[in-house]
Amino acid sequence: MVVYGDMQSGNCLKVKLILSFLGIEHQWIHVNILENETKTSEFLAINPNGKIPAVMLDDGRTLSESNAILGYFAEGTDFLPLDVYQKAKVYEWLFFEQYSHEPYIAVARFIQKYQGMPESRVEEYQSLQAGGNKALALMEQQLSTSAFLVGEQPTIADIALYAYTHVADEGGFNLSNYPNIQRWIAAIAAKKGYIGMQG
Amino acid sequence: MVVYGDMQSGNCLKVKLILSFLGIEHQWIHVNILENETKTSEFLAINPNGKIPAVMLDDGRTLSESNAILGYFAEGTDFLPLDVYQKAKVYEWLFFEQYSHEPYIAVARFIQKYQGMPESRVEEYQSLQAGGNKALALMEQQLSTSAFLVGEQPTIADIALYAYTHVADEGGFNLSNYPNIQRWIAAIAAKKGYIGMQG
Ligand SMILES: N[C@@H](CCC(=O)N[C@@H](CS)C(=O)NCC(=O)O)C(=O)O
Ligand SMILES: N[C@@H](CCC(=O)N[C@@H](CS)C(=O)NCC(=O)O)C(=O)O
Repeated sequence: MVVYGDMQSGNCLKVKLILSFLGIEHQWIHVNILENETKTSEFLAINPNGKIPAVMLDDGRTLSESNAILGYFAEGTDFLPLDVYQKAKVYEWLFFEQYSHEPYIAVARFIQKYQGMPESRVEEYQSLQAGGNKALALMEQQLSTSAFLVGEQPTIADIALYAYTHVADEGGFNLSNYPNIQRWIAAIAAKKGYIGMQG
Repeated sequence: MVVYGDMQSGNCLKVKLILSFLGIEHQWIHVNILENETKTSEFLAINPNGKIPAVMLDDGRTLSESNAILGYFAEGTDFLPLDVYQKAKVYEWLFFEQYSHEPYIAVARFIQKYQGMPESRVEEYQSLQAGGNKALALMEQQLSTSAFLVGEQPTIADIALYAYTHVADEGGFNLSNYPNIQRWIAAIAAKKGYIGMQG
């Protein structure tokens, strides 16, 4: 199995984490988005949407969308509850991540860390702070009532939200305002099999 | 069971469609987002993220995120394949919808149809056209090889993508460029139990 990704990308880190927690062997191929390596015809044959992460299974079938990849590998493991309602709560957090969290926190981080805060994007960067803090406040609220986002054991909801939350300071967010998030970050980083962004 | 929603909203229509296709009885409570009815303390107790759709089950438990709600009701039905890879492909489309489709097509429609294209958002509106057409082209590509987005039977991937695609013209997108999408829209609208946006 081959994973196409970049270990500095939170969306890609999600895939690395689930595979590492589950001990699933894979080959990791680095793809550089700043050099448009997601737009080559070879890569578009793997993911027509031209984004990483993407996975090619041993039989050649492909899968993209980080959170769909998490669901695929988590199926049948402790990372995805069997109970239909609990499972739906996990997916609720996964969709929340893509719609109300990543577009603020990951984009602010991209502007600050990858692009070095160009003048042309400062206003946009500032406008992302409120949405990112709203998302963090919703996580903080949940994590003040349960150890992990859905119950007392980590699920793929935690892996997905961990990805950009633990580096939110690189997008200008101050995590010291969120003590339960800080506790939760430490709990995930302490898990057996944990791998950080440096790989 | 109670659904909180607005029948003009594609995200809410998804929930109406799955419940109607499956013949699940429910009460529908209209929520007006333009009058901030999603920001009252009563509503925030149902969905702390302050968005519709949201569902309250008979036992009082709540669920939000349109695509997580789809997954909840589709579990164990023909709308969600049992095969782990096919199911992951359905979720791939659901995450694609929230990240690469809805933020372009639904937002352009909102600016044009709900807000009446205010001068202050014309530039943003125009900038959304390329992303929306890219999403439509990816759907067209898939639908030129299969009847529905994942295989030959409709799944919740089709319901989710149908929601804003079938009204994409209200956001300035020209569906006559996408013949397979048009065929697919007609097939969904012909299904027993279909309900349109007017309710
Ligand atoms: N919804 C996608 C988002 C993936 C995404 O945006 N990937 C970025 C890197 S973090 C990318 O490939 N960007 C290149 C591009 O969009 O052209 C997912 O969750 O996998
Ligand atoms: N990711 C959410 C998006 C829901 C959403 O954006 N709903 C809109 C109406 S279509 C809303 O409630 N907007 C009010 C607000 O965000 O304040 C879902 O799929 O349910």
